[in-house]
Amino acid sequence: MTVNVGVIGVGMIGKDHIRRLTTVLAGAAVTGVTDVNLDAAQQVADGVPGGANVHSNGQELIDDDAVDAVVVCSWGPTHEEYVLAAIEAGKPVFCEKPLATTQQACRRIIDAEVAFGRRLVQVGYMRRYDAAYRALKGVVDSGDIGTPTMLHSTHRNPSVPGHYTREMAITDTAVHDIDVARWLLADEVVGVRVLKPRKNSLGGELEDPLFILLEMAGGALVDIETNVNIRYGYDIRGEVVGETGTASLGSGGPISVRRNNLVSDRVPEDWRERFIGAYDVEFQEWIDAVGSGGTFGPSSWDGYAAAVVSDAAVEALHSGERVAVELGEKPALYS
Amino acid sequence: MTVNVGVIGVGMIGKDHIRRLTTVLAGAAVTGVTDVNLDAAQQVADGVPGGANVHSNGQELIDDDAVDAVVVCSWGPTHEEYVLAAIEAGKPVFCEKPLATTQQACRRIIDAEVAFGRRLVQVGYMRRYDAAYRALKGVVDSGDIGTPTMLHSTHRNPSVPGHYTREMAITDTAVHDIDVARWLLADEVVGVRVLKPRKNSLGGELEDPLFILLEMAGGALVDIETNVNIRYGYDIRGEVVGETGTASLGSGGPISVRRNNLVSDRVPEDWRERFIGAYDVEFQEWIDAVGSGGTFGPSSWDGYAAAVVSDAAVEALHSGERVAVELGEKPALYS
Amino acid sequence: MTVNVGVIGVGMIGKDHIRRLTTVLAGAAVTGVTDVNLDAAQQVADGVPGGANVHSNGQELIDDDAVDAVVVCSWGPTHEEYVLAAIEAGKPVFCEKPLATTQQACRRIIDAEVAFGRRLVQVGYMRRYDAAYRALKGVVDSGDIGTPTMLHSTHRNPSVPGHYTREMAITDTAVHDIDVARWLLADEVVGVRVLKPRKNSLGGELEDPLFILLEMAGGALVDIETNVNIRYGYDIRGEVVGETGTASLGSGGPISVRRNNLVSDRVPEDWRERFIGAYDVEFQEWIDAVGSGGTFGPSSWDGYAAAVVSDAAVEALHSGERVAVELGEKPALYS
Amino acid sequence: MTVNVGVIGVGMIGKDHIRRLTTVLAGAAVTGVTDVNLDAAQQVADGVPGGANVHSNGQELIDDDAVDAVVVCSWGPTHEEYVLAAIEAGKPVFCEKPLATTQQACRRIIDAEVAFGRRLVQVGYMRRYDAAYRALKGVVDSGDIGTPTMLHSTHRNPSVPGHYTREMAITDTAVHDIDVARWLLADEVVGVRVLKPRKNSLGGELEDPLFILLEMAGGALVDIETNVNIRYGYDIRGEVVGETGTASLGSGGPISVRRNNLVSDRVPEDWRERFIGAYDVEFQEWIDAVGSGGTFGPSSWDGYAAAVVSDAAVEALHSGERVAVELGEKPALYS
Repeated sequence: MTVNVGVIGVGMIGKDHIRRLTTVLAGAAVTGVTDVNLDAAQQVADGVPGGANVHSNGQELIDDDAVDAVVVCSWGPTHEEYVLAAIEAGKPVFCEKPLATTQQACRRIIDAEVAFGRRLVQVGYMRRYDAAYRALKGVVDSGDIGTPTMLHSTHRNPSVPGHYTREMAITDTAVHDIDVARWLLADEVVGVRVLKPRKNSLGGELEDPLFILLEMAGGALVDIETNVNIRYGYDIRGEVVGETGTASLGSGGPISVRRNNLVSDRVPEDWRERFIGAYDVEFQEWIDAVGSGGTFGPSSWDGYAAAVVSDAAVEALHSGERVAVELGEKPALYS
Repeated sequence: MTVNVGVIGVGMIGKDHIRRLTTVLAGAAVTGVTDVNLDAAQQVADGVPGGANVHSNGQELIDDDAVDAVVVCSWGPTHEEYVLAAIEAGKPVFCEKPLATTQQACRRIIDAEVAFGRRLVQVGYMRRYDAAYRALKGVVDSGDIGTPTMLHSTHRNPSVPGHYTREMAITDTAVHDIDVARWLLADEVVGVRVLKPRKNSLGGELEDPLFILLEMAGGALVDIETNVNIRYGYDIRGEVVGETGTASLGSGGPISVRRNNLVSDRVPEDWRERFIGAYDVEFQEWIDAVGSGGTFGPSSWDGYAAAVVSDAAVEALHSGERVAVELGEKPALYS
Repeated sequence: MTVNVGVIGVGMIGKDHIRRLTTVLAGAAVTGVTDVNLDAAQQVADGVPGGANVHSNGQELIDDDAVDAVVVCSWGPTHEEYVLAAIEAGKPVFCEKPLATTQQACRRIIDAEVAFGRRLVQVGYMRRYDAAYRALKGVVDSGDIGTPTMLHSTHRNPSVPGHYTREMAITDTAVHDIDVARWLLADEVVGVRVLKPRKNSLGGELEDPLFILLEMAGGALVDIETNVNIRYGYDIRGEVVGETGTASLGSGGPISVRRNNLVSDRVPEDWRERFIGAYDVEFQEWIDAVGSGGTFGPSSWDGYAAAVVSDAAVEALHSGERVAVELGEKPALYS
Repeated sequence: MTVNVGVIGVGMIGKDHIRRLTTVLAGAAVTGVTDVNLDAAQQVADGVPGGANVHSNGQELIDDDAVDAVVVCSWGPTHEEYVLAAIEAGKPVFCEKPLATTQQACRRIIDAEVAFGRRLVQVGYMRRYDAAYRALKGVVDSGDIGTPTMLHSTHRNPSVPGHYTREMAITDTAVHDIDVARWLLADEVVGVRVLKPRKNSLGGELEDPLFILLEMAGGALVDIETNVNIRYGYDIRGEVVGETGTASLGSGGPISVRRNNLVSDRVPEDWRERFIGAYDVEFQEWIDAVGSGGTFGPSSWDGYAAAVVSDAAVEALHSGERVAVELGEKPALYS
């Protein structure tokens, strides 16, 4: 059965998901779109194969019977409203990160979903769908390297736009590493510190790089390097250290070139190049889950936990001190 | 627009393509199937989302107005008939390798397509769609390593079934390397030799491995190692040697594991694991080309050239001598 | 000219250096040996090509005119006495780490050497002579990766003996990483913290692994993972992160083996296998420097700095807090 | 005991061996030198630590009681005379390749050595002392990859001097690969072919690259790529293909650098950089063998076999045909 999807927000990421749903993946159609800019919504709707309805706002789109499931790609502060409306309507909703902009808002979503009694929400942490991260998770779960004691995570960008702040290094950048840490280690964060290495002069006044340290409930220690002006490429690395071995993301590219006295592989240019395959898998599995009533990926709880840990990390960045993290009880729905 | 595809032959590969067309890729529907075993065809048709017609034979399927384009996955000896019928009907046809079982049959297909005046046929050489091979081709075409002088190609299988013959090491196995050589070097084969290394005892009486040498019209030399009982994995490697550098398929996997005194990556188990992504891209691009009237991939000429070179290689295997390869004039349609 | 060397201490490391000086390297002879166990000294002396004098104690050996230069490999608490005696005698002295067991003792050595007015002391930090570390240092110094902002250093041992304590993870193990950090970054440590990841159960009660964080005067942040029960091998890794790139120790071995579904390289078994070449280069350059009056390697100041930083790290391990590091003024002799 | 070495020929390689014997390795002294250019010999002798006698010719040097063992680094055509003289004198002789310039001359050396009744001659095939090749040999001999069926050997030089001929690609370049093939596979060559890939335009008129195929007595097939104008570096690679796995020389350098969108390792610039360590080990083991009466490395038989196979390869290059190789019976002395 074709899943009819309504998309709220047709900025860069919204457009890309529409392209994906209509020209790359099987089993979905885009039947409705909306955006704060209705002209933009109309333009996008015109380009959808078979056409799509333009709704004047998200609530209307969610309520449309021609929409089976909702994708939220609008501005972060609007996420809570649309996710809650989708839950109210009993429709599956894929929400790009962040789930909501405050812990309290995330909590309200959790409460609504728990009250509904069934999972409807998936949050856009696409790294869990990347082939290399999945292979890493496979090794960790196999027990082949023993119980994890540490995780080294590296997140490098060639550059960032001018409005990027040091807090965004946590809330926009490291938040992916935080989610990956919780998922790979199947554990929650209980404390966080942020250290400030020598400033990269290429970032001007920006406090960059950062070195973020997470203590997990089970004792494992996670370190996250964010380095967002490093020029040489978009480089995502990770190593899980176990009691008897380790597993790392590979560092080689698909080919190897020998010229000019070097044997070399390319480093990806940006997150699109690095994770395009992960986005495809993420959405294919989401469509399949919607269509078949199957299991969803990253949950409201994951979105909430990311928000709480990010907030604590921002506080730790400001204070220079260790900040404790308390998530409270996890509802059974998410176990 | 959705492309309605009819599939002739629902064996393992046919079933896999139907799964791909209906549950993985966008823009296609399977509207008709047939098979020499009509019960099998019916069973497959029943599983197709939205259902598919079962036709009593390939000709009938091709003639059905509900079929826009044809996929031929039946037994090799039937390929010629179905491809010619599709050309007769003016419908795009994707034919799994081989295009046909004899050079003469391939020639007849070329003649029919040339008479039709427009390309309709694509042959299933999926390596051209593999991300690593495409990156290799990109480096070669960039001129970064200078004009190619050699190509080393390695094709290893852990094991082969009991009915596998030494000729199949050429016609079923090395034929992929032959196609890749022609494509990477953008050149034709003019001579071939086959050398016989020490026999691998794990293959019993089979003449395995083989070392196949192709001379290209432009002078480049290609060597192909086939090793089909090597146990350790399915390992496809290649290096283009240019005047000032070389480019190779990478040998690393997506992750790297450190345990038991080794740092290691996995070798794929079989061709499915290695090339599943290539099949997806191959079919997505074919559907897009059918839908948009765009350019097709490997042509009848490529299928014909593979047949002629394979035949010469089999003769060289038997005789122990160099065998000249003559393809004749390439019709303008394929330039 | 042959350099006549006297060796104090003929335990495992002393014996190995005697083997190196007499059967591997050019330009040296071992003319005197002593040990707290004189029988052992005699036995070793008997095995030296050409024979060597056995001295009843270190002072006597140092005073012997047949000894041009001294190697101190005795028990750590005796180092200060012998190094001071060598300085008193105006003879070059190679002292295995530690230079001395307290900061104060190291200071006394510095004072004596400064009073002597010329460098005589070299401390056994052999990593600075390893080919890979030297290549790393070359890239850092070239400016190719920009100013360093971070250094990730990893020190893994398969196992440690029963008497190994958590403090030794700093004073015996991480002390090499501390020296490497100072050398690679050409900078001094100003603060240190020690974090405790989840305990590796294979180490019993031992607090292992540790994660040591060094702040450098110039702002660079260094993290050192010590993991001394990790079973899979002796694995030394490091990555200098610069403003525009990074440089890492390579992770591959000299060969690559494909079998059993893996492509793999060996990890060294122990420090001997990993650093045997570095020891050879270290001593060859020391002999050459003694013979030619050339420049020595790691200095008393380096030995002192390692002691001060190690002491601070031990304090940080006990307190859980950041500990400031103050080295005081560096005498001009060491600039 | 110090081994007193006499060196015949003080060109580039002779000087380098004298440097090695006097300033790098233990256990040797250079007591005599000679050269066709006696002034050059005198100059070199003056630089030897402790001084060395200058002899007016090789015979005189060999006859000097102050010379225990002889190193022959003179012009190839003189090798036979000096090696025979050393055997006559009963002194160990290390002869740089080639052992002699004709098969017949090699045979005369073998006859003389067999008549003498004990091995005295070692030929300078230094690759057998390279750490990576030794690790490769270790895997092959362990049986871990099964019986070898193929060997791929690659020999690339950035450029060659103007007097370099296509025959030298065999006699000077590939001769190392030929020796390695015989050693790694513990087998003899029985047939050879030479194929000519597209000519590299950077080599002007030179027939380059070549692709040399060796058939081993046990059936294994060896292919050797020589490419001597490939600009990008000095690149030596090799893969032994066994029945159940393969073993290859590693392709990574000691470090890995990430900058300018690449992750890269250096390729060595020339044979000195790549094999300097192998020369050191080669001579250390030779000195040890001379001093202790131990076993020598590559023998007169190896030098002879290399000559016979090279001659056959040159004939095959000229004729374009397969040329059979017959070595005759191997004397028991070399088994």
